[in-house]
Amino acid sequence: MISAVQTDPIVAVSTPSGMGGIAVVRLSGKGADRVIGKCWKGVSLDGIASHSAHLGKVLLEDGSVLDEVVLTFFKGPRSFTGEDVFEISCHGSRWIQRELVNLLVRHGARAAAPGEFTQRAFMNGRMDLAQAEGVIDLISASSKASHRMAMRQANGRFTVYLDNLRDRLIEFASLLELELDFSEEEVEFADRKRLRDLADELLGVLRRLAASYSTGKSLKDGVPVVIAGAPNAGKSTLLNQLLEEEKAIVSDVPGTTRDIIEDTCEVNGILFRFIDTAGLRDTADIVERIGIERAEDRLSRASIILWLLDTTGDTDNQLKEILNRVGELPDASHLLVCNKVDLANNCESEKYSPAEAGQGESLCGAAAESLFGKETAHLFDACMSISASEGYGIDELKGIMTSLACKEYNPDTDIILTNGRHYAAILRGAEALSRARAALDTGLSADFIAQDVRETLHHLATLTGTISTPDLLASIFSRFCIGK
Amino acid sequence: MISAVQTDPIVAVSTPSGMGGIAVVRLSGKGADRVIGKCWKGVSLDGIASHSAHLGKVLLEDGSVLDEVVLTFFKGPRSFTGEDVFEISCHGSRWIQRELVNLLVRHGARAAAPGEFTQRAFMNGRMDLAQAEGVIDLISASSKASHRMAMRQANGRFTVYLDNLRDRLIEFASLLELELDFSEEEVEFADRKRLRDLADELLGVLRRLAASYSTGKSLKDGVPVVIAGAPNAGKSTLLNQLLEEEKAIVSDVPGTTRDIIEDTCEVNGILFRFIDTAGLRDTADIVERIGIERAEDRLSRASIILWLLDTTGDTDNQLKEILNRVGELPDASHLLVCNKVDLANNCESEKYSPAEAGQGESLCGAAAESLFGKETAHLFDACMSISASEGYGIDELKGIMTSLACKEYNPDTDIILTNGRHYAAILRGAEALSRARAALDTGLSADFIAQDVRETLHHLATLTGTISTPDLLASIFSRFCIGK
Repeated sequence: MISAVQTDPIVAVSTPSGMGGIAVVRLSGKGADRVIGKCWKGVSLDGIASHSAHLGKVLLEDGSVLDEVVLTFFKGPRSFTGEDVFEISCHGSRWIQRELVNLLVRHGARAAAPGEFTQRAFMNGRMDLAQAEGVIDLISASSKASHRMAMRQANGRFTVYLDNLRDRLIEFASLLELELDFSEEEVEFADRKRLRDLADELLGVLRRLAASYSTGKSLKDGVPVVIAGAPNAGKSTLLNQLLEEEKAIVSDVPGTTRDIIEDTCEVNGILFRFIDTAGLRDTADIVERIGIERAEDRLSRASIILWLLDTTGDTDNQLKEILNRVGELPDASHLLVCNKVDLANNCESEKYSPAEAGQGESLCGAAAESLFGKETAHLFDACMSISASEGYGIDELKGIMTSLACKEYNPDTDIILTNGRHYAAILRGAEALSRARAALDTGLSADFIAQDVRETLHHLATLTGTISTPDLLASIFSRFCIGK
Repeated sequence: MISAVQTDPIVAVSTPSGMGGIAVVRLSGKGADRVIGKCWKGVSLDGIASHSAHLGKVLLEDGSVLDEVVLTFFKGPRSFTGEDVFEISCHGSRWIQRELVNLLVRHGARAAAPGEFTQRAFMNGRMDLAQAEGVIDLISASSKASHRMAMRQANGRFTVYLDNLRDRLIEFASLLELELDFSEEEVEFADRKRLRDLADELLGVLRRLAASYSTGKSLKDGVPVVIAGAPNAGKSTLLNQLLEEEKAIVSDVPGTTRDIIEDTCEVNGILFRFIDTAGLRDTADIVERIGIERAEDRLSRASIILWLLDTTGDTDNQLKEILNRVGELPDASHLLVCNKVDLANNCESEKYSPAEAGQGESLCGAAAESLFGKETAHLFDACMSISASEGYGIDELKGIMTSLACKEYNPDTDIILTNGRHYAAILRGAEALSRARAALDTGLSADFIAQDVRETLHHLATLTGTISTPDLLASIFSRFCIGK
């Protein structure tokens, strides 16, 4: 059930809150012209052309000037909401913004609820639900990758993808229905082999889509990269290099870092969340011990782990400790990062910076294998040598992290789920479809199978809002800021 | 000397910084169309109509969509800056705002300096300096009164006023010059009596204008109202009533408030800065003593002092203490506020709430005189009875404060100085004119007097920017936010 469409004039400040050069107050709905007409001094609003901007004044009830503004009119349905919209560009004082909204409310507009403009755009068929959710993501996007994913969703590319999927499911369903129509004749019209293939293919698509959610969530919130290793391996120095600021306190004293220090940073268009941790070691210091426990918790949730090896120290023991942990963390990508290779007067470190690889370049397969042994080298997604303090190899490290973050899904080309609601709907859809698939094998009758396929279709329809409930709409649009 | 007019395209986000539904990026200058043309996908920009809005896309160099935007074009000189201006209304993510500005910079625009758009408006004769400064004040106005003063300045009413003043000074000067032209003939053409009258009148206007600055500054930053009185007279309770929130801690223990507690609040369109102080008494408590010293400092800078009398206590002693201090503070308006008149079972307080006055009404002249004696009553600008805890009389108190704040200058009708630079220029102008006035009496020759009048004219000319230096302009426009 779709809730009754409201069309009364609503008003809100649409620009960020605070003081600025200008601010934009948006007014939308039936009778918006009457509301603004009561306080507008300028060109006549009768027969005003759509998409035209006009300098004029907004007057208070006592005839005094509240502000000199630029009024832009968008005639419905050629507007954001699909209704008649006035955008009032006023001076950006908090006082003027507040008073202008209050004035329009006194003249008959209602203060808009969060997301109400976008909700009207949805109600008026200007966009579907997935697109509207893309608009929220677009507003909060903080990296190129998250921006691209949101833009694709807001532009309807996700919708087209879903429509295509739905068309194929409907084809599947209609083959089954055909069988149902003739069920009394106990004839299997549909080619079960073809049905099975189609179900397998669609199930694959849905599962791949569901699996993309963890990448999508990472790309949206920041790909968690944990920097781990022995005390004094240079973890905080590397964090500061990656963030390009002095975030963590660096000292020669092993165990300097105890708190989890983290910050996000856009690298090659991808938002990373770098997490510096306490060096992993047995310690009697209770604060340091708590820090290490927290580090272990973060390791278990990392997408990428940078295992820092201090090449000026006891590398065999460090490597042993690292290998112990790598095996326990199968979900993350692991990088073996040999640090401090600039200390060339140190024989031990020199071999990690072989002439054929060069400082700051990755230890190519052969070099890593000869250093660590074939088996060990293959446990890592990449091995490389750097100097965190000198900045050698940092760019290459960033490049490797970027490709690891997108190794399964490319945010520039793939459809990637970023929204928990979409993920849940796709999961439920896949579940129903896999029941249908199983039923095909066990030879259940077509009406049971058709029921499951209809359920899959239902879940897909909730994504774009073809099927929606007032509760669902309320929960989606309340996530918006006011004025959008 | 006016610095060379720059016309290169400049760009900045003009809306408040942060995340919102939409944001507006402004692009102004010669060749702005070429800059936006490099990334615009939509209607052709050739021959685009002024004041027209267009939905379209902004493309990154790789052809991907940065955002779907509404582009509004204002053809110079019919624009804010007087140049060709494009306003790009984009989605309000921080990322999009930043990338859009960066993109336009890559396409040849320059990131605008603070106030640079307004500076161009000044350079192109769209507004004078005083108007431009009015625009800053308009953006930071936080009450109706400060808004009105700024609006009048931005709209040029201050300029008209100054022009009128200047015309009269020029009349004065020309009478003197006439004398100079014939100086060899030693004839006094100008009627010295008429000159003296004109000088007196203009000097009066300048002095009144200069005197308005303290009111203007108060109205802009908040009229300082200090709440003073004996410990436990109910000062914090009154503060909370006036602010309509629980700002100060209230208890029955005398000496609860030690810190200066203050906050601003708009009352009847005027911004007040209410300051709650430690109760004035001799105390051994060192923290309380520091608090009392601070209270005395605030008293010396108050515009209005609310002397709270606890009518349930020893009123004679309290009044004696108050009268001692009132005499030392001649610049402030003094209100005698008899508190706790609701405690009707207390005989002492009942008489402060006489039947003819009624609770919460001002003790009219006769009532106050009969209570405190004629001489004492006349030391105060008003006497009234309230109950801070019950809220009786608060509205009337607010009304009295409002009229006291504007007793000399009415922000709705008078020209009031609010800008330190204007104040300094008016003061210097008045100084020079008073030298001229004195010279008229001492019979100095016309050329000396004319020199002083020219100096007065010079100072007035700096107000509107008829005379300006690059340094002056830089210091004025750097006070603006970026994007304005």
